[in-house]
Amino acid sequence: TPAAAATQKAVIDRALLTVFKALPARFEDPKNPITAEKVELGRMLYFENRLSKNHDVSCNSCHDLNKYGVDGKPFSPGHKKQLGGRNSPTVYNAGGHVLQFWDGRAPNLEEQAKGPILNPVEMAMPSEARVVETLKSIPGYVTAFQKAFPGEADPVTYNNVGLAIGAFERQLVTPSRFDKYLSGDETALNDAEKLGLKKYLEQGCQTCHNGPAIGGSLQKLGLVLPYQSKDQGRFDLTKKESDRMIFRVPTLRNVAKTAPYFHDGSVKDLQTAVKLMAQHQFGKQISDEDTKHIVTFLDSLTGELPKSYIAKPKLPASGPKTPKPDPS
Amino acid sequence: TPAAAATQKAVIDRALLTVFKALPARFEDPKNPITAEKVELGRMLYFENRLSKNHDVSCNSCHDLNKYGVDGKPFSPGHKKQLGGRNSPTVYNAGGHVLQFWDGRAPNLEEQAKGPILNPVEMAMPSEARVVETLKSIPGYVTAFQKAFPGEADPVTYNNVGLAIGAFERQLVTPSRFDKYLSGDETALNDAEKLGLKKYLEQGCQTCHNGPAIGGSLQKLGLVLPYQSKDQGRFDLTKKESDRMIFRVPTLRNVAKTAPYFHDGSVKDLQTAVKLMAQHQFGKQISDEDTKHIVTFLDSLTGELPKSYIAKPKLPASGPKTPKPDPS
Ligand code: HEC
Ligand code: HEC
Ligand code: HEC
Ligand code: HEC
Ligand SMILES: [Ca+2]
Ligand SMILES: [Ca+2]
Repeated sequence: TPAAAATQKAVIDRALLTVFKALPARFEDPKNPITAEKVELGRMLYFENRLSKNHDVSCNSCHDLNKYGVDGKPFSPGHKKQLGGRNSPTVYNAGGHVLQFWDGRAPNLEEQAKGPILNPVEMAMPSEARVVETLKSIPGYVTAFQKAFPGEADPVTYNNVGLAIGAFERQLVTPSRFDKYLSGDETALNDAEKLGLKKYLEQGCQTCHNGPAIGGSLQKLGLVLPYQSKDQGRFDLTKKESDRMIFRVPTLRNVAKTAPYFHDGSVKDLQTAVKLMAQHQFGKQISDEDTKHIVTFLDSLTGELPKSYIAKPKLPASGPKTPKPDPS
Repeated sequence: TPAAAATQKAVIDRALLTVFKALPARFEDPKNPITAEKVELGRMLYFENRLSKNHDVSCNSCHDLNKYGVDGKPFSPGHKKQLGGRNSPTVYNAGGHVLQFWDGRAPNLEEQAKGPILNPVEMAMPSEARVVETLKSIPGYVTAFQKAFPGEADPVTYNNVGLAIGAFERQLVTPSRFDKYLSGDETALNDAEKLGLKKYLEQGCQTCHNGPAIGGSLQKLGLVLPYQSKDQGRFDLTKKESDRMIFRVPTLRNVAKTAPYFHDGSVKDLQTAVKLMAQHQFGKQISDEDTKHIVTFLDSLTGELPKSYIAKPKLPASGPKTPKPDPS
């Protein structure tokens, strides 16, 4: 029985864990040094509805920081409640991904952040110029950009919006007991979780879900058994045959909290997601029992939310020239 | 036809190449800083027959530096022509492996080097003490150890043998056209090689063969279709179930020159090795045509041997107390 099995002591070879990495305190990038001022500005912008056309959508609408960085919906409603075509991935630990978006089309968080603001089904701002105009009309933002980008003559730029949000996101990390376990504490996981980890390693899930984010590289969905989907992943972006069905491997950190699953948000429960992975990536059926063990391990990857870091800040008041919400 | 296909222009998405890394000039490890003196000593020890019981086997016997670091045999003859049970892997680029040996039982090159000298079927020295006694009896080595480990009161130690050989090996790297290609030079690979790379990426070989050595982590042999072998890989070492059939992924650099293939040296040609990989790791049959394309790509991974670095050095003369060869 699973219960009996779970009480077995699973002995894990620590050498197999070298493919993982404990979470850093932040994902640094020398191209965008993290400063307190940049983070403070980035946090405001992350929660800022006025970065959307109708002043009703912010990053946090789709990536709710109190809900592990997701909204729990297959597709997220943006401007005029329009739905995009892909599931919103979590922003937590996304700094550990090699590339951003399901198709890897942004090289880093800073570039990524510049996408949704102008995306007509997300925040739907008409232009970079309008974003800058809006921010310049809010005195509190002008000051905040000056502090975040000292020495710049004209610091309120669209590019700096990306840098500030990126700096904020680079510290959205959720250390968990698994990190304690990785750093040598055998008691950080219980026996049932270790048994699950053993099954995970035996299946070979770590061939793709590895590194500090336990995911984040580009891999083929349907390596062995094709996955039916109109969405052809990175191929739709590049039209290169070698990119067909290539998707950015999602992080498995907090995966128990980020349903529904897959780029199409088509799977509600983690058991099913794990079984589908084994089928499509290995052409194998995993037993219900082993699936449960793996899910028990995945549950242990739920980390701590940085409560005070993610508290919604006070946003500066609009000025007389701040554009009004535009529901059109 | 393959010829026609090879003249097609394969367009590779460079984002997929982020799993590889160009070869560094040396694989540094802060625990064993590389100095010219250590390297000089390490090179002598690498070619030193007197580190074997009968003065007839050196590292270079099994890992011939002029032959891409292998001897071309399924199993290598050691002391009294005894054969070990596993194929000799190449020493080139081994510094890029996460762990050493087919079962990953040594954490680095320095520890690895201390194994074969005492292994009864390899160099068969009876004890560490005998190795140290031999080296101390050779005046040229005493001087060389003093220079390599300055400030040590008693530098001729078994551990320092490992450090010196390790430092030498950390610069056994073979940059190839693939590295030029990785660093952005589109002309470094020809169209046929790029087509092969595309097939390699489409199959998903890079899920395991990646990083600077294009290999080097621990993975399961027979992920989808079991590989029949008495040798159970890392399981035989640890007796942990999660280690069954786990082997250290071999580097694919110079793989065209390191036949025969697999830990059991059972496969003579690269075509067959590639087909078996697809069968055992993905449960797929690759067409002859695609196999040839992949092999064409693998051929491009053959790098340049560092001719002067690997030239056999003059070895210091034995002293009066140097033990005599022992054929027993
Ligand atoms: C209306 C919903 C919505 C809004 C608003 C939104 N996002 Fe997203 N976000 C998504 C979706 C959907 C994706 C995946 C799109 C894709 O991959 O094609 C995504 C992807 C991302 C990613 C990539 C994560 C990964 O793992 O690849 C990050 C980071 C991110 N968003 C941050 C932000 C930030 C910062 C903002 C605000 C500036 C924002 N999002 C606004 C829905 C939204
Ligand atoms: C060869 C690569 C590969 C292997 C092996 C693999 N995965 Fe995945 N995994 C992916 C990719 C790519 C996706 C994203 C698929 C998508 O949604 O488009 C994914 C998605 C997932 C998801 C959904 C996550 C989310 O937030 O939507 C889970 C859960 C998961 N994998 C678990 C596993 C488990 C457990 C195993 C082993 C049984 C495994 N994977 C093996 C590449 C792999
Ligand atoms: C008689 C043959 C023989 C001799 C002599 C020998 N080796 Fe090896 N070497 C092997 C075999 C066989 C293996 C693989 C053994 C295993 O994995 O269990 C190996 C493994 C290695 C590896 C690991 C490479 C990898 O990819 O894992 C290195 C490095 C290495 N040898 C260096 C040396 C050095 C340095 C010496 C001399 C001090 C030496 N060898 C002497 C046969 C030999
Ligand atoms: C899931 C991991 C994995 C995947 C995927 C994989 N390999 Fe391997 N490969 C290994 C392991 C492990 C070995 C060592 C097996 C042994 O000899 O014990 C190996 C060995 C090899 C060898 C023999 C090298 C030598 O020096 O003996 C070649 C060649 C090779 N792989 C090529 C490929 C190609 C081409 C593909 C894609 C079609 C591929 N591999 C996919 C893990 C993998
Ligand atoms: Ca999700
Ligand atoms: Ca070989």
